[in-house]
Amino acid sequence: MTEQKPLRVLVWGENQREKNDPRVQEIYPDGMHETIRAGVESLLGAAATVRTTTLDEPEHGLTQEVLDSTDVLIWWGHMAHHDVADEIVDRVQEAVLSGMGLIALHSAHFSKIFRRLMGTSCTLRWRNEDDRELLWTVDPTHPIAAGVPHPLVLDQHEMYGEFFDIPAPDELIFISTFTGGEAFRSGATFRRGYGKVFYFSPGDQDYPIYHHPDVQRVIANGITWAAPATRRTPQLARYRAGDFFAGEYHSPSQRFGGATA
Amino acid sequence: MTEQKPLRVLVWGENQREKNDPRVQEIYPDGMHETIRAGVESLLGAAATVRTTTLDEPEHGLTQEVLDSTDVLIWWGHMAHHDVADEIVDRVQEAVLSGMGLIALHSAHFSKIFRRLMGTSCTLRWRNEDDRELLWTVDPTHPIAAGVPHPLVLDQHEMYGEFFDIPAPDELIFISTFTGGEAFRSGATFRRGYGKVFYFSPGDQDYPIYHHPDVQRVIANGITWAAPATRRTPQLARYRAGDFFAGEYHSPSQRFGGATA
Amino acid sequence: MTEQKPLRVLVWGENQREKNDPRVQEIYPDGMHETIRAGVESLLGAAATVRTTTLDEPEHGLTQEVLDSTDVLIWWGHMAHHDVADEIVDRVQEAVLSGMGLIALHSAHFSKIFRRLMGTSCTLRWRNEDDRELLWTVDPTHPIAAGVPHPLVLDQHEMYGEFFDIPAPDELIFISTFTGGEAFRSGATFRRGYGKVFYFSPGDQDYPIYHHPDVQRVIANGITWAAPATRRTPQLARYRAGDFFAGEYHSPSQRFGGATA
Amino acid sequence: MTEQKPLRVLVWGENQREKNDPRVQEIYPDGMHETIRAGVESLLGAAATVRTTTLDEPEHGLTQEVLDSTDVLIWWGHMAHHDVADEIVDRVQEAVLSGMGLIALHSAHFSKIFRRLMGTSCTLRWRNEDDRELLWTVDPTHPIAAGVPHPLVLDQHEMYGEFFDIPAPDELIFISTFTGGEAFRSGATFRRGYGKVFYFSPGDQDYPIYHHPDVQRVIANGITWAAPATRRTPQLARYRAGDFFAGEYHSPSQRFGGATA
Repeated sequence: MTEQKPLRVLVWGENQREKNDPRVQEIYPDGMHETIRAGVESLLGAAATVRTTTLDEPEHGLTQEVLDSTDVLIWWGHMAHHDVADEIVDRVQEAVLSGMGLIALHSAHFSKIFRRLMGTSCTLRWRNEDDRELLWTVDPTHPIAAGVPHPLVLDQHEMYGEFFDIPAPDELIFISTFTGGEAFRSGATFRRGYGKVFYFSPGDQDYPIYHHPDVQRVIANGITWAAPATRRTPQLARYRAGDFFAGEYHSPSQRFGGATA
Repeated sequence: MTEQKPLRVLVWGENQREKNDPRVQEIYPDGMHETIRAGVESLLGAAATVRTTTLDEPEHGLTQEVLDSTDVLIWWGHMAHHDVADEIVDRVQEAVLSGMGLIALHSAHFSKIFRRLMGTSCTLRWRNEDDRELLWTVDPTHPIAAGVPHPLVLDQHEMYGEFFDIPAPDELIFISTFTGGEAFRSGATFRRGYGKVFYFSPGDQDYPIYHHPDVQRVIANGITWAAPATRRTPQLARYRAGDFFAGEYHSPSQRFGGATA
Repeated sequence: MTEQKPLRVLVWGENQREKNDPRVQEIYPDGMHETIRAGVESLLGAAATVRTTTLDEPEHGLTQEVLDSTDVLIWWGHMAHHDVADEIVDRVQEAVLSGMGLIALHSAHFSKIFRRLMGTSCTLRWRNEDDRELLWTVDPTHPIAAGVPHPLVLDQHEMYGEFFDIPAPDELIFISTFTGGEAFRSGATFRRGYGKVFYFSPGDQDYPIYHHPDVQRVIANGITWAAPATRRTPQLARYRAGDFFAGEYHSPSQRFGGATA
Repeated sequence: MTEQKPLRVLVWGENQREKNDPRVQEIYPDGMHETIRAGVESLLGAAATVRTTTLDEPEHGLTQEVLDSTDVLIWWGHMAHHDVADEIVDRVQEAVLSGMGLIALHSAHFSKIFRRLMGTSCTLRWRNEDDRELLWTVDPTHPIAAGVPHPLVLDQHEMYGEFFDIPAPDELIFISTFTGGEAFRSGATFRRGYGKVFYFSPGDQDYPIYHHPDVQRVIANGITWAAPATRRTPQLARYRAGDFFAGEYHSPSQRFGGATA
């Protein structure tokens, strides 16, 4: 068995509320992304190296070089989805299709990158009134559910409810219920190109969700699961009869959206 | 039982090759869209009313009014995907998410609208050298496969092969093989919002595929399958505790891409 | 358009509690199967002919002749699963694999036929303490959800909760929540052979669930959905090279469980 | 990171043809199971310990004790499916539902245990006339496809073709084509209870398929993928309101097939 290299994880935080909302500052004094980072580091240890970056960085901290050296990107955003530049979204989408894992957290359901990868509106119903949320595991064989209580209990959280306008997940792992009676598909996977996407609906910035050890466990499991098997850009290519391995690739401008004969 | 209204079908054709390539003109003298229309009409009869339109029409013939009165849109395009205006693609996407059925044919795998709804590159391998294509039904319970031979034989056709970069289909109906040995997921469904999408990979403009009665049968079945159950725009909405039915909708600008609390 | 023949529906009721439990007798004086029949007849009208039969009939009312003339079988059983003869279960399984639709209701999750078709234990968690159940539609494009409120409200019902040991459904249509906070995949489809199976978890015999118009609507939709596209027994067959249509079928004893070369 | 214990793999071989067919003896002088074992050992090394057993052993070598100490069971059988005792099939099914991984190879499509777990007839079309088989990866993100050529080429093999009567796979990984033009879903996964099942259609005893390094790679990947996340028997249990963790389990006789209230 070969020694495995540490997974290169990048936590992207919008980091707006943490700067201007005292309640959020109290829960996440260093920003939500730093709490997420700390949770991953404590659980994955030497198996991962974790960096963070935020919306305010040049290119939102998501240069091509950074993406090329990232195995799994974690995305948390909420109020500033529209401030993310479209060309950065293009770049992140191509990175995912080329194998980079993506974990979209909570309100990232409405981020440009998640909606781009889903092709749907990603709308839902919501209420922020301290519901208790219970996450029930419906796929106990899934590595993302390993070591997660059934149910996982969040004493207080924002309600996200169905209908959640996403494609039917490849794998549905968690279903949430709320005090008010709503249901939500709160843990779901989607394969896109050579990349794997995991959506996990906890947690809102008004609650200390990312300090919760079970939530940290789910995120750590998600990273391990989303690690790329390969890093390779999907290509349009012509193959002559009898040749299965040496295709004639189209020019870069045709790779995505060029034309066949 | 109530009388069912005829399905309102619209066939969208790129209609470029038919104008400037004598070989295509010979196969499709009135344009591919008219041959597709004739096939649907002969099979669905009074159960459908079929219109056609093309890229060259104002707004590509896809005004909001036209889309609002279309139950199922059939899309064939190839060389001119980039000439379709982005705002029209936005409009068609919203129509699909709001319930309109979409049937994407052959090279429409690379159309803006199909790639938008998939979230992937939709790249594939190809070869245009007269392979025989066989379509094998792997879901014989599916209404789209009803009355379709197993296999459906196309004596000559362009090869489309895996890896086809699409999300894992909700339902995989047909798998194709080619003389050269390639395989392709050639009939597949995807649910997006309140709408249903069917991708069917026959047929290239260089072959008389849409004159083939079995191909016509698949398209007619696809129309019946893709007909909307409802027509309704997915919405972001806040629901107070105890109220399951009267959500507070966000402003139109927030419906798609607005923000929760 | 051709005139469609009425669907031939058979409601199978265990009919034990109705005979010996006064509370159940009061809710279902003619047996649960008769209430289910009446609901289907009122909604499908001339589109269906509905018969009923029960456990106590010879061969449980499920002779080969009866199954051959049934398009969709509805199954309700609870305390007497073990009294269903294995050879009848074999027969029903072969009918489903040959195209007959099956709707398994509530405690039929533990019936021999449902477990046979699933391959799993079909265990779950339960509590019979008057929880309110809400059924949320997670696939609004599905014909089984057409005309069903979101959520469908059952004021009092037995709780069925996850983990429900079934294969991942082909289509997940409804998710239920309960007053106590549990979640359940309460409406799900599974394709088996040439047949379609719909599991729907309402309703327990202690509550008037099958008098509920929305529940009746779901069952009627399920019948229409589960109607066979074809009636044909899956066969092991040898096909010579170049012959796609005329296989050499194995002897009947080999059809199921015989051997390839 | 904790040290992982070696996976405990058991290769079950029918071992009949190897004893009485000189051609098979020549290809597999120690039995097919020993060749499979050698391939796994060479690829997984210290990450797995591999045992073998055969039909002729007492209880077919599948005592409760053996199953309790097996993480992943590999099954190869062909002509003698009916000689496997039903009570052993019961035992293996319960082991799978309780978490043990199962890899069903080639003609094990018709084994009692695979058909039990699928719920379908598992019939297919076949021909044993030296077709070339190509396996195309349609899910390149899947760990079972890691390091596998696209396509994987088998110069000569028995043809297995559609319609293959299995449930729609949870994950479809490989699609095969054959010289004769047939298609087959040749690599597919199914989750059952707490266990994971992988069906892989190579290889027939008349060809040296298990000596092929790419085939060995797929099997080794399959073992790693199918390793149990947990080992736990699905249970029917009653949970009182407000108690999510301490259910009242039913008696062992009720665990599988007992009754709710």
